[in-house]
Amino acid sequence: MERTVFYISDGTAITAEVLGHAVLSQFPISLNQYTIPFVENEAKAHEVRQQIDDLYQKTQQKPLVFYSIVSPEIRAVIEASQGYCQNIVHTLVAPLQQELGIAPLPSAHRTHGLTASNLVKYDARIAAIDYTLAHDDGISLRNLEEAQVILLGVSRCGKTPTSLYLAMQFGIRAANYPFTADDMDNIQLPAALKPFQHKLFGLSIDPERLSAIRQERRENSRYASLRQCRMEIAEVEALYRKNNIRFLNSTNYSVEEISTKLLDILGMSRRMY
Amino acid sequence: MERTVFYISDGTAITAEVLGHAVLSQFPISLNQYTIPFVENEAKAHEVRQQIDDLYQKTQQKPLVFYSIVSPEIRAVIEASQGYCQNIVHTLVAPLQQELGIAPLPSAHRTHGLTASNLVKYDARIAAIDYTLAHDDGISLRNLEEAQVILLGVSRCGKTPTSLYLAMQFGIRAANYPFTADDMDNIQLPAALKPFQHKLFGLSIDPERLSAIRQERRENSRYASLRQCRMEIAEVEALYRKNNIRFLNSTNYSVEEISTKLLDILGMSRRMY
Repeated sequence: MERTVFYISDGTAITAEVLGHAVLSQFPISLNQYTIPFVENEAKAHEVRQQIDDLYQKTQQKPLVFYSIVSPEIRAVIEASQGYCQNIVHTLVAPLQQELGIAPLPSAHRTHGLTASNLVKYDARIAAIDYTLAHDDGISLRNLEEAQVILLGVSRCGKTPTSLYLAMQFGIRAANYPFTADDMDNIQLPAALKPFQHKLFGLSIDPERLSAIRQERRENSRYASLRQCRMEIAEVEALYRKNNIRFLNSTNYSVEEISTKLLDILGMSRRMY
Repeated sequence: MERTVFYISDGTAITAEVLGHAVLSQFPISLNQYTIPFVENEAKAHEVRQQIDDLYQKTQQKPLVFYSIVSPEIRAVIEASQGYCQNIVHTLVAPLQQELGIAPLPSAHRTHGLTASNLVKYDARIAAIDYTLAHDDGISLRNLEEAQVILLGVSRCGKTPTSLYLAMQFGIRAANYPFTADDMDNIQLPAALKPFQHKLFGLSIDPERLSAIRQERRENSRYASLRQCRMEIAEVEALYRKNNIRFLNSTNYSVEEISTKLLDILGMSRRMY
């Protein structure tokens, strides 16, 4: 079964997308998805309504519409379409209103917006991205006292995407340090990292997956060989154990999962942006 | 009014956080927030329930609980707590079930999970992050034909965080190119960028905000002076106009907003991860 779905918002539509997608993925259907952000006036809303109605005429099946729009006038245009319309935030706001005993003030809010009240937090998040880039891949071992996490691992095990996700999503200053083939004869924790044992976190990965990833980069190289990958993983895991460094095998996890598991394991609290 | 809220999930809890936060920010209350991911067994659920109940005992106010847990047994433990519990995905799944006429299959799904079926898409996203890092700040002007977007702008106007967000969130290969103080005497679009006019996108920013951001980096420098910032912005905006490059003033926007506006303006479709 295939259904068309629209994620519509007067803002970025990121919340509508994330939530709508989470809801729809509970059902065994394939999706044809459209995201329409910044529906900020009635003219734009009428355009979108036309698109929904045209599709209904063509397919004789109601397009699914997950929307979040503050203005009642703009919202009304979408609701008058022939789609199956679900106001995602409102569905959850209504019951909460009863529990809180106060009315919502929806006009005040842009979920991913920049306002005077969150500017300081936002700037700290951008500073975390800067810090993380400047401390990617062992580029700099200076100012490591400012890092909140220092990721360790061999080439292509996921250090860089994880560090960037931690910075982007959670505003965490994440440095990362690579162990290379040259380190393997006598693998040791660099002296510069030793004072920061409490914030070190190791990544590991199945040698088969590592080899497949490295093949993409340098086909048929020693670097990508299963034998080399097996040896490197055995060495770094031994190093993690010897130095009591907490670590995670990233093979079956996305950057979102690796990042949140890391925060959970290190007992770090999450800030939201 | 202050309320405590728990975001609880058997996965990363990112969806619970994003959605719960969107819902709660509709109300004029201040929040004391806890995120608890990976509640994957009953023992962990009992711990969390205890935490919720202890807080209720202490404050005599129901903690707000936004949760998303697949297993009915684990879910039941949370639901038996003294919190105000809202099953975020289920609240939206139930009405949809009627429209679709089929039952949900929730066990199959991890919103931010890595599975055999999304591995190819996931690897493409990681490749986009690699590409974007290799083409950050004009480091490399090679392989620009592989870029989907090329961001332009002066130092500290938001090019790097926007490029990384596009790669991380949408799997878009985003290069970026800086105009420096040295370019200003005779500002020109580099020859290497000319063939890619259709995917160029300019960033601008208010000189006052730019100056404040640069002050953080190099206090009282010419680089950070309002006069220099005004001149650079005037020059790049003139260049954008002369070359018909679409551009956006990023002053009041977050990276999420800049990124989604850019995709909207360039007419690029969004992929979800």
